[in-house]
Amino acid sequence: MNNELKVLIGSSNKSLGTEICNLIGIPKCKTFTTRFSNDNLFVQILESVREKDVFVIQSLYPDPSNSLVELMLICDALRSASARRITAVIPHYSYARSDKKDKPRISIAGKLIADVLITSGVNRFLTMNLHSEQVRGFFTVPTDHLLSEPVITNYLKKLDLSNTVALLDLGQQKREGNFAKKLAIPLAVINKERISDTRVEIKQMIGSVKGKDVIMFDDEISRGTSMVAAVNLMKEQGARDVRMVCTHGLFAGTAINLISKSPVTEIITTNTVEISPEKRLDKITLLSVAPLFAEAIKRIHTGDSVSALFEEK
Amino acid sequence: MNNELKVLIGSSNKSLGTEICNLIGIPKCKTFTTRFSNDNLFVQILESVREKDVFVIQSLYPDPSNSLVELMLICDALRSASARRITAVIPHYSYARSDKKDKPRISIAGKLIADVLITSGVNRFLTMNLHSEQVRGFFTVPTDHLLSEPVITNYLKKLDLSNTVALLDLGQQKREGNFAKKLAIPLAVINKERISDTRVEIKQMIGSVKGKDVIMFDDEISRGTSMVAAVNLMKEQGARDVRMVCTHGLFAGTAINLISKSPVTEIITTNTVEISPEKRLDKITLLSVAPLFAEAIKRIHTGDSVSALFEEK
Amino acid sequence: MNNELKVLIGSSNKSLGTEICNLIGIPKCKTFTTRFSNDNLFVQILESVREKDVFVIQSLYPDPSNSLVELMLICDALRSASARRITAVIPHYSYARSDKKDKPRISIAGKLIADVLITSGVNRFLTMNLHSEQVRGFFTVPTDHLLSEPVITNYLKKLDLSNTVALLDLGQQKREGNFAKKLAIPLAVINKERISDTRVEIKQMIGSVKGKDVIMFDDEISRGTSMVAAVNLMKEQGARDVRMVCTHGLFAGTAINLISKSPVTEIITTNTVEISPEKRLDKITLLSVAPLFAEAIKRIHTGDSVSALFEEK
Amino acid sequence: MNNELKVLIGSSNKSLGTEICNLIGIPKCKTFTTRFSNDNLFVQILESVREKDVFVIQSLYPDPSNSLVELMLICDALRSASARRITAVIPHYSYARSDKKDKPRISIAGKLIADVLITSGVNRFLTMNLHSEQVRGFFTVPTDHLLSEPVITNYLKKLDLSNTVALLDLGQQKREGNFAKKLAIPLAVINKERISDTRVEIKQMIGSVKGKDVIMFDDEISRGTSMVAAVNLMKEQGARDVRMVCTHGLFAGTAINLISKSPVTEIITTNTVEISPEKRLDKITLLSVAPLFAEAIKRIHTGDSVSALFEEK
Amino acid sequence: MNNELKVLIGSSNKSLGTEICNLIGIPKCKTFTTRFSNDNLFVQILESVREKDVFVIQSLYPDPSNSLVELMLICDALRSASARRITAVIPHYSYARSDKKDKPRISIAGKLIADVLITSGVNRFLTMNLHSEQVRGFFTVPTDHLLSEPVITNYLKKLDLSNTVALLDLGQQKREGNFAKKLAIPLAVINKERISDTRVEIKQMIGSVKGKDVIMFDDEISRGTSMVAAVNLMKEQGARDVRMVCTHGLFAGTAINLISKSPVTEIITTNTVEISPEKRLDKITLLSVAPLFAEAIKRIHTGDSVSALFEEK
Amino acid sequence: MNNELKVLIGSSNKSLGTEICNLIGIPKCKTFTTRFSNDNLFVQILESVREKDVFVIQSLYPDPSNSLVELMLICDALRSASARRITAVIPHYSYARSDKKDKPRISIAGKLIADVLITSGVNRFLTMNLHSEQVRGFFTVPTDHLLSEPVITNYLKKLDLSNTVALLDLGQQKREGNFAKKLAIPLAVINKERISDTRVEIKQMIGSVKGKDVIMFDDEISRGTSMVAAVNLMKEQGARDVRMVCTHGLFAGTAINLISKSPVTEIITTNTVEISPEKRLDKITLLSVAPLFAEAIKRIHTGDSVSALFEEK
Repeated sequence: MNNELKVLIGSSNKSLGTEICNLIGIPKCKTFTTRFSNDNLFVQILESVREKDVFVIQSLYPDPSNSLVELMLICDALRSASARRITAVIPHYSYARSDKKDKPRISIAGKLIADVLITSGVNRFLTMNLHSEQVRGFFTVPTDHLLSEPVITNYLKKLDLSNTVALLDLGQQKREGNFAKKLAIPLAVINKERISDTRVEIKQMIGSVKGKDVIMFDDEISRGTSMVAAVNLMKEQGARDVRMVCTHGLFAGTAINLISKSPVTEIITTNTVEISPEKRLDKITLLSVAPLFAEAIKRIHTGDSVSALFEEK
Repeated sequence: MNNELKVLIGSSNKSLGTEICNLIGIPKCKTFTTRFSNDNLFVQILESVREKDVFVIQSLYPDPSNSLVELMLICDALRSASARRITAVIPHYSYARSDKKDKPRISIAGKLIADVLITSGVNRFLTMNLHSEQVRGFFTVPTDHLLSEPVITNYLKKLDLSNTVALLDLGQQKREGNFAKKLAIPLAVINKERISDTRVEIKQMIGSVKGKDVIMFDDEISRGTSMVAAVNLMKEQGARDVRMVCTHGLFAGTAINLISKSPVTEIITTNTVEISPEKRLDKITLLSVAPLFAEAIKRIHTGDSVSALFEEK
Repeated sequence: MNNELKVLIGSSNKSLGTEICNLIGIPKCKTFTTRFSNDNLFVQILESVREKDVFVIQSLYPDPSNSLVELMLICDALRSASARRITAVIPHYSYARSDKKDKPRISIAGKLIADVLITSGVNRFLTMNLHSEQVRGFFTVPTDHLLSEPVITNYLKKLDLSNTVALLDLGQQKREGNFAKKLAIPLAVINKERISDTRVEIKQMIGSVKGKDVIMFDDEISRGTSMVAAVNLMKEQGARDVRMVCTHGLFAGTAINLISKSPVTEIITTNTVEISPEKRLDKITLLSVAPLFAEAIKRIHTGDSVSALFEEK
Repeated sequence: MNNELKVLIGSSNKSLGTEICNLIGIPKCKTFTTRFSNDNLFVQILESVREKDVFVIQSLYPDPSNSLVELMLICDALRSASARRITAVIPHYSYARSDKKDKPRISIAGKLIADVLITSGVNRFLTMNLHSEQVRGFFTVPTDHLLSEPVITNYLKKLDLSNTVALLDLGQQKREGNFAKKLAIPLAVINKERISDTRVEIKQMIGSVKGKDVIMFDDEISRGTSMVAAVNLMKEQGARDVRMVCTHGLFAGTAINLISKSPVTEIITTNTVEISPEKRLDKITLLSVAPLFAEAIKRIHTGDSVSALFEEK
Repeated sequence: MNNELKVLIGSSNKSLGTEICNLIGIPKCKTFTTRFSNDNLFVQILESVREKDVFVIQSLYPDPSNSLVELMLICDALRSASARRITAVIPHYSYARSDKKDKPRISIAGKLIADVLITSGVNRFLTMNLHSEQVRGFFTVPTDHLLSEPVITNYLKKLDLSNTVALLDLGQQKREGNFAKKLAIPLAVINKERISDTRVEIKQMIGSVKGKDVIMFDDEISRGTSMVAAVNLMKEQGARDVRMVCTHGLFAGTAINLISKSPVTEIITTNTVEISPEKRLDKITLLSVAPLFAEAIKRIHTGDSVSALFEEK
Repeated sequence: MNNELKVLIGSSNKSLGTEICNLIGIPKCKTFTTRFSNDNLFVQILESVREKDVFVIQSLYPDPSNSLVELMLICDALRSASARRITAVIPHYSYARSDKKDKPRISIAGKLIADVLITSGVNRFLTMNLHSEQVRGFFTVPTDHLLSEPVITNYLKKLDLSNTVALLDLGQQKREGNFAKKLAIPLAVINKERISDTRVEIKQMIGSVKGKDVIMFDDEISRGTSMVAAVNLMKEQGARDVRMVCTHGLFAGTAINLISKSPVTEIITTNTVEISPEKRLDKITLLSVAPLFAEAIKRIHTGDSVSALFEEK
């Protein structure tokens, strides 16, 4: 790519950032990040970005608050340093989960954080698999919303799915239902109720998984408790292999421990969030979304269609 | 209520507006609406609204564009006439259906229309059963989101539901699932696919409705085609009575004709949209949400909690 | 023109749009427009407009509200699809008539609609013969204001004007007075009073038209009642031929019928508003402003002066 | 009035400000204004305005730039000092004359100055007889637009107008035409052309003034050259007495000298602009608009209708 | 105080918040704060704040990023819950240190964070001893800037200062110089150079401290390295007692250890930042600013002058 | 430079503007400036600036209010004439002195004026030696802040400084202290107190200047009173030559007279403010900053680093 394009990598997901830079074929833009003695974050951009088209790669996990503030400081510094355009590339926009007011007097943080980033100088967003499709409406600047589906479907198609059932959650996005359609496998539905942020109770099961291989879909695995509970239920119902597919694999808290002891056959996820080597269990299959992001960045930079990357979008 | 409160009624739902004014116990604020010879809309407020707390009641159906422009003109005139606060009361915010980008290069109109109304002077919104919970995040000013559920549940509880199954759509909002929980009736799930705006194909049915009474839930009935198709399917599957519950009964195009010929037992809906007398079939039960709106307006005016109106919110 | 330029045509004036595209020498940008079953408008842009310089041609007549909402949806979709610049080309900006508060508690809609379009993503405007010059100050983004005068003067100069008087209205814009100066013909003045949107009363006539040919000027003919009344008065005063010149020929309601029965000799107007074939009376001379718009669009796109198109501007 | 109301007087028209304070019955809010050694203006508010409803009286003449900057500094200081509401009371908004783009590449300053004052903290405007009605649309916050007509008509009605003709300018606002209607006197029309800011050429005269008393109307007299030319023409046409009526009497440059030597019978104007004692010729009748402003300020403060002050508005 | 006033306490400085509430005599507004399983912060306001005047107490230390995001979420939730006014009370606004661009391509975070809080719904600020006076200009909404000086001066005046010298830093704010003037003690000046965020080198000493007691002033002590270096230098120069005065005592990292081993006689600071019990060395004198904040909150709520609290301001 | 770049010169500092244009090698953009008969300023841009990158050179001294309003009108006209980017080049931003609230209820005009210029269309700023570094945070658009230091240091290095002391003011910016460091000369410190805008009292002197040459530094000399007082004190203290260095030489009021009679050896200043020929005393050395501005404009236009111009920035 020409020298008008700069890619800057925040601290939250350096390996994905590096992979993207390599795929585009440019070095990452140099920065210096530290903390003042009073713990305020400090970021300096070490090369001129005047009139450049700058992409900043930063997932908002782990450490959402510091990742966010770091991204804000970077974008404000870029704006003040006369960057021509600033695109926040947020592979995992964790605040998207706060997308509604299901309790009184709470913040719809998915909207607030988008506004705050725009105040900080962001001119456009590039993100992946937002918790709900509607969150895209929270971004009041042009936004490209990538989907991990091509990468995941591609992987799943290589498996033997002849005896497989897709298990959906009642109330789950149509997006997840599309997998079953694309893979041409039948559906079963489970009715869970979230008791608290970490506890889930299973109310009802519609359809049978007896003797079947099961694939479950979610956008995010955090502490893994609800996933493990669903896997156990499937096993109790007589399921054979149980696979879990998700875009954002956070594996927070004791998730890795829970998963390693769980009868789940395989967890298929992507690298939107950095997964440290010690978390990479054998049963976790890690697919890279770097090629999708690299291609999208190139197309945004040159003004080519991004939606053309996805057949059905 | 004191004389600081003014309620102004747009042209789209005069009967609901009148009912609300009566319940609050104030006369409606006088206005004059006409069209210029060049078809531009013209609205004049005929009484002083200086420093008043003004509520404008206007659903965005029927005739969404003219209803919207009329609401914009009213709010701009109120602002310029020094109203202290302008609350757009939109019982049916029809544009909420456009809440995501499921095709490339379209407008998320649910967001755009909210922004445009704020540009026109709206200081806060009061609305009911938005198509999805996330749409609330599209309103960047304080917004109260009423639910028709108390009114509807109240009605349903009087029916004999001992033999009843709630039929949910795969991918339907948790909100609809809550009815079943509240009414303590079991669930079945249907997997439909929307082929076009008016055609729906049924892919799969999970659970049995044979010999059962069925209740289906949706937020809006427009042309009725997808509802009638679902009713027919239920009948084919051996269902006894089939009831349809929805908040916003538009009954657009040939809906009334379709419904009158359909084997549906009862359609339970509310008056968020004006239903003309000739559309009021015997099998349509029309519940009034005016008491909820009147109470909410009073509470907003006096600064009392609105969420306290809803137990679970 | 290069491939960075896109011209998109709304539904209100397709023939003018097509003529402009032909003159520029590019195909129109493909779109798909429909209504949802709930009557909400839906627009999809069918080709990539990423980083393009897009001009949207849409008069706000006929059906001002739907024309406006369609234009809003188009511009919002373009913005979200990453168009580089969005120019709303509004040959007839009908809301310009609402340019003052001549009654208390009304909207100055000419300002409101401009703001609302900017909220929808419009980056600049291109329009023609606004009802008053001051309306240009309502547009807070760069705006080019074309005048139909060169096209009209050009036509009038070919007529024999040796016995002609220009009839002005008391209080009419200096713009209309300029015609008389350019054509070097004497003036007479009429003092009318607008009783309502469609009724006009003539108070006083200053100067004589006896035995003279008369040319009257207005920016817009809508229902034609005031024009026909003026023609009749001229005839009563002994005028020979009476011609009417206007930029925006709406011919609303029964205008065509009124005109066909009126003794007016000729109505000279332009195609800023689409005139259906059945309205094209022999005595209506239709001049095309497409060459002016095509040239302006080309100059805006390439960064050349637009005011240079008009000697006196 | 209660102690929530504060009236602050800028330097441009202290006598009008003082008269208004006296009529309202409150002392003016204390301020200290000076210039730094580098000629920057400095204003300090000397009493607490926290949560007060503050009106700042400042005409933008004489010395428009310094009057404007002083007003900006006052409003910004008030905002930062937590005033509850800041109303800029601008009896003469001189920039209203720049209300259109009659030359390419100029500022529509009437719009710009309004925006700049809003940026400086102005929450609403109160002004009088803007150069054109459309300028009101330039104010994007609530604005009350007073008219001097009641004061002037009241005065004129006491004169013997039995032999009087109202002389209007071709292209003059309908507002001026209204005087003739209210006073029930006939019209004549003059067609002038402005050659430059100070030179006017008279093209044509429609109607006769021979042996008549003439009243001419304008919103502003600045250097008086165009007015004196019109008076002379009327005299040449055989007029008897010639009176000039205007709201804003600036009497700039050599105006007073010109007027004293001119055959004009009387100039009727108001005190929107401060007229120094040496300019108060016998033939200048100075009417006070202070009662109108005092009443408007009281009504704005208490939330009563301002338009009710004017019958026809 | 009346029931219109609500004080809400964030997690960063609960003891100061509690002290303020006690002084005002109202209970703190109930909230619930937690983290989602994906580490996103979550805050819910547990009582109605509709139309209330809400003050949120939150220092931006310790843990500046999480304190900031918590404050943003609280304010957004309050706005959406229809609070009438939201005042962010930030006793220590740590980002104020980033108030200039002393390196290229950095963020002036002191400005950015203020903007971001305004985006989150903050209507006004109440803060204390900003790092520089100019930072106040970064807040574009009304802001009250308290000074700890009355509290500190009051304490110092009780000491025997007959043999004392005030040691100022070259380039230190006039604010610090004022102490010497108020206490009527002579000055000495030290010229330090900051090598890095934690290392300071002493270049020059102007004036003598031999045999004198020394008082040094700073706005903030973070890791204490530069303070301890200055104390040591004073001792080398023959100073007797050395006291350090600062408003914001962060005592970050190993500060407490450094201080306990240092020959400093006394550190006089305030409770703008929470100091945990184990950090409260005998030589640290902790003065409370709660009375100042409580008084300021009461005055802001009732609309009384805050500047009247400070003689010279 | 290419023909995309336009430099426009306001009235305040035409000689600097002309020098900059000559150094860049382009003619100045033609404009016409006058006053209306009512004293309103009027500016017209006489050549097309459509899609051009325009730099407007205007110091805000002399006559700050008129200079400001002229700059506002120019920028608004440029925006409306479709300039691609408007950079306000303000060599002396005089309002920067108002950078804090050292009295209650005043405007921080340094912030206000920046906001007002942005409202007028300014897209970026280029300025020099702002009164304090923090003022840069008042500009919410990209801003380049040049320093006169390279020009001044270059000149000073040619002098014999072997016997020289730098005299700093207590509380003076670190920026001034840097001169001493760069020139490797020792420091003395003076403690002055500003009694009013023109009177300064000297409290204390730390360090000795006896028999030494003294250099004093300030950002601005306005009426010269405080400078002359300091020179006299230095002489009383036995100083030999006394030099004054400042960036902005206003020489307001009687400054030139005071200076000519003062024992000051040399005043070294720059041409950020126009100095009329009669003010150019022999002891005033005038250095040109035009090369710095010309280079910065070229770099901004082509997108090269501006900070690279200054080693330590």
